[in-house]
Amino acid sequence: MAIIAVPGGSRNEILELVQQTTSMQFKVFDTEPNIAEAGVWEYVGCQNEADMVRQAVHCVASGEADLLLKGGIQTHTLLKEVLKAEHGLRSETILSHVALIHIPALGRPILLSDSAMNITPNEEQLVMITNHAIEAGRKIGIIKPKVAILSAAENYNEKMPSSVLAKNITEKFRTHTTATVYGPLSLDLALSKEAVAHKRFEGSIKGDADILIVPSIDVGNVLYKSLLLFSGATMGGIICGAKVPIVLTSRSDNVQSKQQALDFALQQIEWNEDDE
Amino acid sequence: MAIIAVPGGSRNEILELVQQTTSMQFKVFDTEPNIAEAGVWEYVGCQNEADMVRQAVHCVASGEADLLLKGGIQTHTLLKEVLKAEHGLRSETILSHVALIHIPALGRPILLSDSAMNITPNEEQLVMITNHAIEAGRKIGIIKPKVAILSAAENYNEKMPSSVLAKNITEKFRTHTTATVYGPLSLDLALSKEAVAHKRFEGSIKGDADILIVPSIDVGNVLYKSLLLFSGATMGGIICGAKVPIVLTSRSDNVQSKQQALDFALQQIEWNEDDE
Repeated sequence: MAIIAVPGGSRNEILELVQQTTSMQFKVFDTEPNIAEAGVWEYVGCQNEADMVRQAVHCVASGEADLLLKGGIQTHTLLKEVLKAEHGLRSETILSHVALIHIPALGRPILLSDSAMNITPNEEQLVMITNHAIEAGRKIGIIKPKVAILSAAENYNEKMPSSVLAKNITEKFRTHTTATVYGPLSLDLALSKEAVAHKRFEGSIKGDADILIVPSIDVGNVLYKSLLLFSGATMGGIICGAKVPIVLTSRSDNVQSKQQALDFALQQIEWNEDDE
Repeated sequence: MAIIAVPGGSRNEILELVQQTTSMQFKVFDTEPNIAEAGVWEYVGCQNEADMVRQAVHCVASGEADLLLKGGIQTHTLLKEVLKAEHGLRSETILSHVALIHIPALGRPILLSDSAMNITPNEEQLVMITNHAIEAGRKIGIIKPKVAILSAAENYNEKMPSSVLAKNITEKFRTHTTATVYGPLSLDLALSKEAVAHKRFEGSIKGDADILIVPSIDVGNVLYKSLLLFSGATMGGIICGAKVPIVLTSRSDNVQSKQQALDFALQQIEWNEDDE
């Protein structure tokens, strides 16, 4: 059974999640007293926040735990620790956030990146973000995904930075064999076959995108929030790019979203094990 | 009864709209033959596109028609004509797009700007965009609106350009008496009282925003498209900043959205008349 290390885990919102998750074991590191009854999780009391984060990350780095779930600590505090050379969790690439989203009206899961971490990625960073998302998709069984590089319109416009970025990314993935990467593409043409028919759009993605890559955090953030608020969508997000996935949930996420994130992260790991 | 001038109007999608709109009269300018039966609209045959656009804009500039509805022509062709000094329709400000959106789950209309015209507005342009939206809201009865300047997060972050922009805009409107302008604000805190309660957010907007101002066209575009695709929302957009409103609908908009845009534009005019 997978073991999840949770720095700052002795909090009500984590307890609620753990109580509803029977398929994983949790190891909680906290400066707060243990709020759970015996057997709910393994509790490690810590001296201070630095100690708590270091112990939790070490637990994953040493292979004792399989992945990290952020509890009641700042995201940047956790990621800074993860990136320290001593843990050996850092890889050659940047870290990026990949969200797995279920929109009831769409009927299939989609991945969205980066809606939470990289603010205004440049071309090189957007290539890494795209690669992480393709990889994360493959690990949950999305084979040869259609990857839409989003912009406000489907016509190339040199005055629109997102359009230029999308065209350049598309060019870089032209010979890629494990994914179809295409942009600039607007959201409706990426996800709606009806919009594609209306506009008589002829591109290599026709309303059937599996992965959405956004030009900035603002675009991704407003997109997933509108889907969660008004479309009944659920979202689970993970941080990719380190040697283990990191689950960041926010206090306002519901338990379903948090579980979705944990399952998504776990599938990243299981695949690694199968692959070895 | 209001008269609508429609350059490039002798097309099926305009005919469908006109046939379902009994409260307005239409004057169609086109190089295409008249496709309507007698009495549906007034038809003016034109020599070429330049002639068609010039005649339609002149018709509005001279006061014969009340507003412009774009038919089967390029948006930039129409706007270029509108901005010619000879017509006297140009004002001191930029043109900007204001969308009126009805989201069933929200239960009140909201305005969104600019999701269709200004690509990456600077601070000065975003002030004008905000003023246009406040003005357009007032004309449909939204008095003392709450205006959310959107960003990916509600915490000021100097590394996030949209956050800096939002803070500066908020500062500029601090003494404004006819609207509450506040940012940086994320979409959930702008529109969801539940999210505000969860995050214990204390700002001058608490899930009750009437107007959303986005930092770039990419953000606005993905937001309204996700609302239209997955939340059952309807949207009607107009161009503000010229002396008459201009209605731009796209071929893929449904008739309901087009009528919503026409009604929205008409309310801008009627208010002007009442005010004189």
